[in-house]
Amino acid sequence: MLSKADNDRLTRVGPGTPMGELFRRFWMPALLSEEIAECDGAPRRLRLLGEDLVAFRDTKGRVGIVDAYCAHRRAGLFFGRNEDCGLRCVYHGWKFDVDGVCVDMPAEPQGMPAAGKVRIKAYRTVERNGVIWVYMGAPEHEPALPDFEWSRLPERHYTATKRLQQCNWAQAVEGGIDSSHISFLHSRTEEAAAPSNKYHASDRHPVFEVQETDYGLQIAARRHADPGSYYWRVTQFLLPFYSMIPPVGDFPESSREPYDGHAWVPIDDENTWTWSFSASPARPYSDEELAFRGGRDGFWGPVDHEYKPLLNRENDYRIDRDRQRAANFTGIQGIPNQDAAVQESMGTIVDRTRERLGASDRGVVQFRKLMLRLARELEEGRVPTCVSDGSLYNVRSASLLLPVDVPVGTGAEALLTGTAS
Amino acid sequence: MLSKADNDRLTRVGPGTPMGELFRRFWMPALLSEEIAECDGAPRRLRLLGEDLVAFRDTKGRVGIVDAYCAHRRAGLFFGRNEDCGLRCVYHGWKFDVDGVCVDMPAEPQGMPAAGKVRIKAYRTVERNGVIWVYMGAPEHEPALPDFEWSRLPERHYTATKRLQQCNWAQAVEGGIDSSHISFLHSRTEEAAAPSNKYHASDRHPVFEVQETDYGLQIAARRHADPGSYYWRVTQFLLPFYSMIPPVGDFPESSREPYDGHAWVPIDDENTWTWSFSASPARPYSDEELAFRGGRDGFWGPVDHEYKPLLNRENDYRIDRDRQRAANFTGIQGIPNQDAAVQESMGTIVDRTRERLGASDRGVVQFRKLMLRLARELEEGRVPTCVSDGSLYNVRSASLLLPVDVPVGTGAEALLTGTAS
Amino acid sequence: MLSKADNDRLTRVGPGTPMGELFRRFWMPALLSEEIAECDGAPRRLRLLGEDLVAFRDTKGRVGIVDAYCAHRRAGLFFGRNEDCGLRCVYHGWKFDVDGVCVDMPAEPQGMPAAGKVRIKAYRTVERNGVIWVYMGAPEHEPALPDFEWSRLPERHYTATKRLQQCNWAQAVEGGIDSSHISFLHSRTEEAAAPSNKYHASDRHPVFEVQETDYGLQIAARRHADPGSYYWRVTQFLLPFYSMIPPVGDFPESSREPYDGHAWVPIDDENTWTWSFSASPARPYSDEELAFRGGRDGFWGPVDHEYKPLLNRENDYRIDRDRQRAANFTGIQGIPNQDAAVQESMGTIVDRTRERLGASDRGVVQFRKLMLRLARELEEGRVPTCVSDGSLYNVRSASLLLPVDVPVGTGAEALLTGTAS
Repeated sequence: MLSKADNDRLTRVGPGTPMGELFRRFWMPALLSEEIAECDGAPRRLRLLGEDLVAFRDTKGRVGIVDAYCAHRRAGLFFGRNEDCGLRCVYHGWKFDVDGVCVDMPAEPQGMPAAGKVRIKAYRTVERNGVIWVYMGAPEHEPALPDFEWSRLPERHYTATKRLQQCNWAQAVEGGIDSSHISFLHSRTEEAAAPSNKYHASDRHPVFEVQETDYGLQIAARRHADPGSYYWRVTQFLLPFYSMIPPVGDFPESSREPYDGHAWVPIDDENTWTWSFSASPARPYSDEELAFRGGRDGFWGPVDHEYKPLLNRENDYRIDRDRQRAANFTGIQGIPNQDAAVQESMGTIVDRTRERLGASDRGVVQFRKLMLRLARELEEGRVPTCVSDGSLYNVRSASLLLPVDVPVGTGAEALLTGTAS
Repeated sequence: MLSKADNDRLTRVGPGTPMGELFRRFWMPALLSEEIAECDGAPRRLRLLGEDLVAFRDTKGRVGIVDAYCAHRRAGLFFGRNEDCGLRCVYHGWKFDVDGVCVDMPAEPQGMPAAGKVRIKAYRTVERNGVIWVYMGAPEHEPALPDFEWSRLPERHYTATKRLQQCNWAQAVEGGIDSSHISFLHSRTEEAAAPSNKYHASDRHPVFEVQETDYGLQIAARRHADPGSYYWRVTQFLLPFYSMIPPVGDFPESSREPYDGHAWVPIDDENTWTWSFSASPARPYSDEELAFRGGRDGFWGPVDHEYKPLLNRENDYRIDRDRQRAANFTGIQGIPNQDAAVQESMGTIVDRTRERLGASDRGVVQFRKLMLRLARELEEGRVPTCVSDGSLYNVRSASLLLPVDVPVGTGAEALLTGTAS
Repeated sequence: MLSKADNDRLTRVGPGTPMGELFRRFWMPALLSEEIAECDGAPRRLRLLGEDLVAFRDTKGRVGIVDAYCAHRRAGLFFGRNEDCGLRCVYHGWKFDVDGVCVDMPAEPQGMPAAGKVRIKAYRTVERNGVIWVYMGAPEHEPALPDFEWSRLPERHYTATKRLQQCNWAQAVEGGIDSSHISFLHSRTEEAAAPSNKYHASDRHPVFEVQETDYGLQIAARRHADPGSYYWRVTQFLLPFYSMIPPVGDFPESSREPYDGHAWVPIDDENTWTWSFSASPARPYSDEELAFRGGRDGFWGPVDHEYKPLLNRENDYRIDRDRQRAANFTGIQGIPNQDAAVQESMGTIVDRTRERLGASDRGVVQFRKLMLRLARELEEGRVPTCVSDGSLYNVRSASLLLPVDVPVGTGAEALLTGTAS
């Protein structure tokens, strides 16, 4: 439960809001490279942290993410001509490069003060492994890029997808770091399946150990396994909106399995891009796996050409009550669609003044406390360590069996660090 | 004409509003039984008096109308599993019975204080003759059920339907108790038809006698008939939002005819469920009559599977100007669609500061005065008599011919009381 | 750039706003005659200056533009019966003539004070050359009709069309009086075409001479032509929302060519009717020309049956990026659609506090100053001259070549006056 004031602080992301300012200290995934694949191709509209922007790839392949409106009379640059290393407004021909510098004002008398001094808002971008990252803060505070394993692995060892989520970022994150819901929301009613599901089904009262770290939180959920051992699921919340998903399966197999992660990037207070990444350090993905983990019709979809899920709140996620009775817990197909259903069903911004948390919400509680504290600290001028140290993001999630007397920190240590850096 | 303040008091129905509090002293029709026909079937969303709810029928056939959101993290219970005498949230499995009591918290550690103490909002329900009633007030003020004849008659002697009306409840009631509009809105331009239409057409200046009663208002509209006699149409407004419709035809035939009634149940300030009931005390309805009075494609329709009229404001009620010239007054097919057209055309909440009432609006004026007075009295702790005496609802409407020297009260007395109680 | 307060003053048009009051001193184009072509035909909804109205043509062919709501209980008069010289509300039969006088109250007792004293809002109308004009101000201030040439020419010498524009009137006007954008927004990338385009393409830095006049502004844009001569494009802004479009081509041919003009009539603060007129004083239009300049599928279209463009903001004006690369500057087909794209892309009310004007915006700056000054003067009781002198509107636009030492005022004088009056 939060006060109204704290709920507002947690959820508002526009310019000048405490949480919005905190987000503006980090690099964020902005676009898939495929969205502006072509040099001098069509610009693309983009809304992040409540700001309307337009993205384009220039003649040399550089990516610009700039104000959606021309500096002159504020015509929309989405309609602009992407040509010769700049985006040219079609109204009077003012042209801006990827840095937002106005490089041509053809309608103005020659020799006017003019171009070069006029700029539009432009944010720094970096492209890695099919993802375009953006930094929307002040240039003097530019942070380190987070050193996620999936952004460093070679081709065929990683995937990245996105899908629209029609609710605030925080309730999406809270779903992501909440290990207890998988025993319910994502369960099947027919029969138990994978080994991991065995423990999810047999012990639906996980005990949580939540630990604050340099990058955010490490959340370990402990379930009873065979006599004398625990089944641990270790996941991370990484600042400001990432989570890791442990592999399905248990140790030692899982250490060679691909693992996944999410980013929940705020479009505005009421909409979010849900990113899903995966990393397969040990071996390349097969074609089938790439399509399954990375495509629009794969595990994280299906989504339409604007990355909006086909199963969404307008069609009640195509819930099928017969399936709900006979096959799975929700009657909704697809884990991401099940997550979206419950998270969006709360309303676009859940009213946290009216909830009633339990022991299984320990991770959620810690997440809120951490974010609210960091926002307050930023107002006092203090920034989190991981802003300047990208290597802190070089972590993995894990699921494993440990003897009851081995602490998870010790037992999982080797599994929780990425290969590189 | 009302002041802005009085118009607001009359029309606002949310929790804490004066009129909303008055409504919360009465039972209200909430759903047709057919909407949650099946035990353990799909839950149904429901919005009443501005509150979002969900209805379900449990394993034993009991009906629950509860908060739309789970007590835990506020996931939508519409997506819940309706199983084994309770509705289970699909997020973490909390389960609530029809009384709103949390009977299971499977994700919480065994032995937690937990279930049993946690409750969600749940309202009392009663089911009679195909209609589910709800009481949304405080348990200690539970009122008597209104003893409407149609809710007591045997099978085939009654019907009940509902349709969405896209405006505030009060302007719908004002249409229902307004006997003068039938000479216009519902008239045909071709030729006079039924005997009752004869007087509606020949005397379009009815004189109104409005009388306050224990249940609300009795409204008698007098028209000139054959020399020496008056044609009377006697209708009732019953607290807080019912009206009766006199049978078509005149006395003595009409006393054996079915009669109808409405309830206008506020969904919120701008939307209303228009219920239509009918009662045939004297004889069972034929199959054709049941379909005509009770079906989705009958007299009160056509409506879609969500009970939204197919002729609605988005398509201008499919007005046909040729038909308006040649056949009926509006060019719109169907009496309920004609009513909806004028009532919704005023805007969702009509601006009563800008109207200009005439002598024919006496019933409307009295209705407003009564409702505003009762809301004020409730603020002082006084409740209407009919809240605790359901037998006051055992009334019928009537149309009849009386000699000019017989007062309507005397002449109609025998017709105006239902058989039972 | 404007302050927030001035931007609000410039753009708000509702009753009681400074600009709204200024507009209410002028006649305005309200409807095409074809929209209510038939006597006693269907009424038509109409929204102007933020007021909801309904228009109808009565039995004698007179046009009424009256309040959208009945005086009685405020049912929508759009659903009314247009019959026997009046529009009759279908709720209780109150009937209003084109002057808004209630001429019948059939539901009221005979002999009631009643009809004749009750009025609804009704505005003066005039119909000329296929256009219905309305005056929405106080009767005692009724202005002169603007004496536009196209409203006086004989059949086949004029056209008039309208199309919905989904933004505020002022940013539409600013596009209309802005001669510099045609070198960009409407340019073709393939090859130069008409002689006029030659100068637009060869000199994209026009120099502006803006001069205040009795009717508004005369805006002359000068471009370099062949040695020793200038190419002048002379356009007018006429109060309160008209502009003229110079013919394509240059003097002396252009003096015999048809010319065009616009009116941007505010529907409300965020929507506008963009009217396009044309006049061919020298010769009648051919059938092809009439269809091209006047039809729904012609130059100013295509529009649907409600005059909404088929290429609009919901479909990004069907921009084609290949066409944008290879054929024209925008990739959008049709000059009016190109204009709409940039003007609407600014948002419904452009934020003029954040723009950066250049030398080419001199006309725009003068337009704003003029309108804000006139609104202020009206508050002090002063009205513009042209309100009472319709002959001031008898002007033409022109494009012509002049020797460098001939002032445009002298050189263009003969071209800039219409034939009549």
